[in-house]
Amino acid sequence: MKTVGIRDVAKLAGVSVTTVSHVLNETPHTRVAEETRNRVREAAQRLGYGPNRVAQALRTRRSGLVGLLSEEIATTPHAGRIILGAQEAARAHGLTLVIVSAERGSHAEAHRADVQALLDRQVDAILYATMYHRTISLPPNLSGLPAVLIDATDGTGTLPSVIPDEVGGAVAAVRHLAEAGHRRIAFLNNSDDVPATHGRLAGYRQVLAEHRIPYEEKLVGEAVSEPAEGYELAKEILARSQPTALFCYNDRMAMGAYRAARELGLTIPEDLSIVGFDNQEIIAANLFPALTTVALPHYEMGAWALETAAEMLSEGSDRPAGPFEPVLLPCPLVPRDSVAPPRQT
Amino acid sequence: MKTVGIRDVAKLAGVSVTTVSHVLNETPHTRVAEETRNRVREAAQRLGYGPNRVAQALRTRRSGLVGLLSEEIATTPHAGRIILGAQEAARAHGLTLVIVSAERGSHAEAHRADVQALLDRQVDAILYATMYHRTISLPPNLSGLPAVLIDATDGTGTLPSVIPDEVGGAVAAVRHLAEAGHRRIAFLNNSDDVPATHGRLAGYRQVLAEHRIPYEEKLVGEAVSEPAEGYELAKEILARSQPTALFCYNDRMAMGAYRAARELGLTIPEDLSIVGFDNQEIIAANLFPALTTVALPHYEMGAWALETAAEMLSEGSDRPAGPFEPVLLPCPLVPRDSVAPPRQT
Repeated sequence: MKTVGIRDVAKLAGVSVTTVSHVLNETPHTRVAEETRNRVREAAQRLGYGPNRVAQALRTRRSGLVGLLSEEIATTPHAGRIILGAQEAARAHGLTLVIVSAERGSHAEAHRADVQALLDRQVDAILYATMYHRTISLPPNLSGLPAVLIDATDGTGTLPSVIPDEVGGAVAAVRHLAEAGHRRIAFLNNSDDVPATHGRLAGYRQVLAEHRIPYEEKLVGEAVSEPAEGYELAKEILARSQPTALFCYNDRMAMGAYRAARELGLTIPEDLSIVGFDNQEIIAANLFPALTTVALPHYEMGAWALETAAEMLSEGSDRPAGPFEPVLLPCPLVPRDSVAPPRQT
Repeated sequence: MKTVGIRDVAKLAGVSVTTVSHVLNETPHTRVAEETRNRVREAAQRLGYGPNRVAQALRTRRSGLVGLLSEEIATTPHAGRIILGAQEAARAHGLTLVIVSAERGSHAEAHRADVQALLDRQVDAILYATMYHRTISLPPNLSGLPAVLIDATDGTGTLPSVIPDEVGGAVAAVRHLAEAGHRRIAFLNNSDDVPATHGRLAGYRQVLAEHRIPYEEKLVGEAVSEPAEGYELAKEILARSQPTALFCYNDRMAMGAYRAARELGLTIPEDLSIVGFDNQEIIAANLFPALTTVALPHYEMGAWALETAAEMLSEGSDRPAGPFEPVLLPCPLVPRDSVAPPRQT
C-alpha cells in the first residue's frame, strides 16, 4: 500500500507542510485563512490522507477511542440503535466507538473483565449500556475515567445516566386510549420488579385520575413479558372484566393479546383497542392490524451518553463529581392501526 | 486516576520489569518459565495492568484494530450477530473491533467515506458486511489492506468472502416437508433479483427432483418479501392450487402466510404446514404455532471473516492474491411446531 504523506497534501494544496499539520491537527492559536483551511482539507480528503491517529494519541495522551459496553447486541435491535446513536455523535466529535458485548444480567464482577478489555485499549471514556432499564452495581474498575450509564442507574448517582421516561411513555399510551373514548382500559403489566413495571403502572394510574376513571384491580394483571404469557393474561382479563381497550407492557405481550382477541372473536380495533410499548418494529409494524405503541429512545440515549462523555473529556479533570440525577428522555407515541373509539353500548 | 505501572506488576509477581515486559508483550525468542508467565499474568490481571497498546501500536506499526463496516446495525439483530461473532474471534486474537455503520444498499462511492473513517483510525484490516446476501462493487479505497466480505461477493473474487449456503438451506427446509409426506409444496419466493431468490428456488427444485415430485408453476409465486405481500401471495396460491405445505422465502412472508391460513380457516400445522427462512427469532419463536425455519449463519460469518483477516495479518505481505471463491456456510433447519404430515385425503 503506497502511503500518502503530508508532503503530498501540502503539494496538492499549494501550502507548506506546517500549514497542513496545523489545519489537520486543529492546532490551537494558529492563524490560517478559512479559504486555505478548506483547500487543505479538500486535498487531504482527495488523497485519503488522515492525521496519524496513533502518533496523535501518544502526543495528546488521548486515544480518541470511546468504549461502549453493551448487553445483548446479538438478540435485539435495541442495542443497534444505541450503537448508532453513540456512533453518529462520536463521529461528530472525531471520536471512534469501540464496542464490547456483555452478557445480559451478569453481575458487576463479570463485567469487570469487559471493562478491563476497554481500559487495556486506552479508551478515553466508557459508555455502559444495559438492554432494559434497571438499577445496576458498577464494576469497580469503572471509576477511573469518564463513564456514562445508558438505560441504567447505579442507585447512588455516582455516574451520569440516561433512561427512558417510563411514566411519560405510559401516560402517552393510556391518554391516547382515554382520548379515543375508552374508560374500561385494562393494563397487562410485567411481573418483574424493574423500574419500567412501576413507572408504567404509575403512568396508567395518572391518566385514570386525570380522566376521573376509577382504578379497578380486576383490570390490571401481571405476567412474564412475552407473547405466550401475554396471551394467557389477555384471555383471563378479557373474560373477567370486559375491557374495551388493553394497554400492554410491551409489544411482545401485545402480540399475545392479538391472538387472545382472535380466539375470542374480537376484531381489533373495532371490538378491542390495543396499545403496546417498545416500538419493536418487526412486531409492531407487522402485526395485523399494525400496532399503535410507544417508542423507547435508544438512539437518543446513545447519542446523549456520547455527548456527555465528550463534554466530560473536554472539561478535563474538572469534571463534575456528582451525584447525578438520571436524565429522562421521552417515549413518544407511535400511532398505527390498533386503536378506535369503543363501540356504543 | 492512579495509574498502575509495570513496576507494580513486577513487584507483585516478584520478577524483573524486563520479564514482565517480555511476558505481557509476548516478545519472541525470550525464555520465561510457564509458571513465571502465569504469575506475571495473574499479577497484571489483579492490578488491572494492560500493556500500553498505543505505544505498542507505534512500535509494531500495527494498531490492533480491525474495522467492521456493517449495514443496518440499528434495524435488525442480524448485524448484532455478525458483530458478536467477529468480536469474540477478535478477542481470541487480541484484536479490537471498531464498528462503522453504513446505509443499506448505498453504493461503492458512498461507502468510500466509511472506509476512509476506518483507514484514518489506522485499522489493520477491514471486514465489510452487507445485511442481505448480494453482489457489490468494492469501494476503491478498500484495496490497500487486508479486507474480507461478509454476506457479499464482489463478483470477481478480488477479496475473500463468506456467504450463506442458500441452496443448502432451501434443501433442508423443503426436504423437511417432503420427508413429512408432503407432495404439494408451494414456494412463496422473493421478487427481488438477489442471490437468495435464485439459490432458494434451486434448492426447492432440487428436493422436488430428489423426491420425483413434478415442478408445477402454479405452486410457485413471487412477491415483496414482507408480511403484507406474503399474506396476499399466500391467499392467492392457497386458492389456486391447494398446497398442503408452504415454503416461504423468509419468516416475514411466513408471518403473512399465517394470517392468510387463519382467514381461510386452515389450522397450522394440521391443515397446512409452513416453513420459513432466516430464523428471525422474534417472529419465528413467537408466532403461534412457533415457526419451523432455517437459520442464517450471521454469527459464524462474522467469526470466519475475523479469523481470515487475522490469518492474512499474520502472513504479512505474503497474503494470497486471489481470485477467491466465496466460502459457503451452512443454513441449518430449526424445527419448531409448524410442520405435520398432510391430512389423508
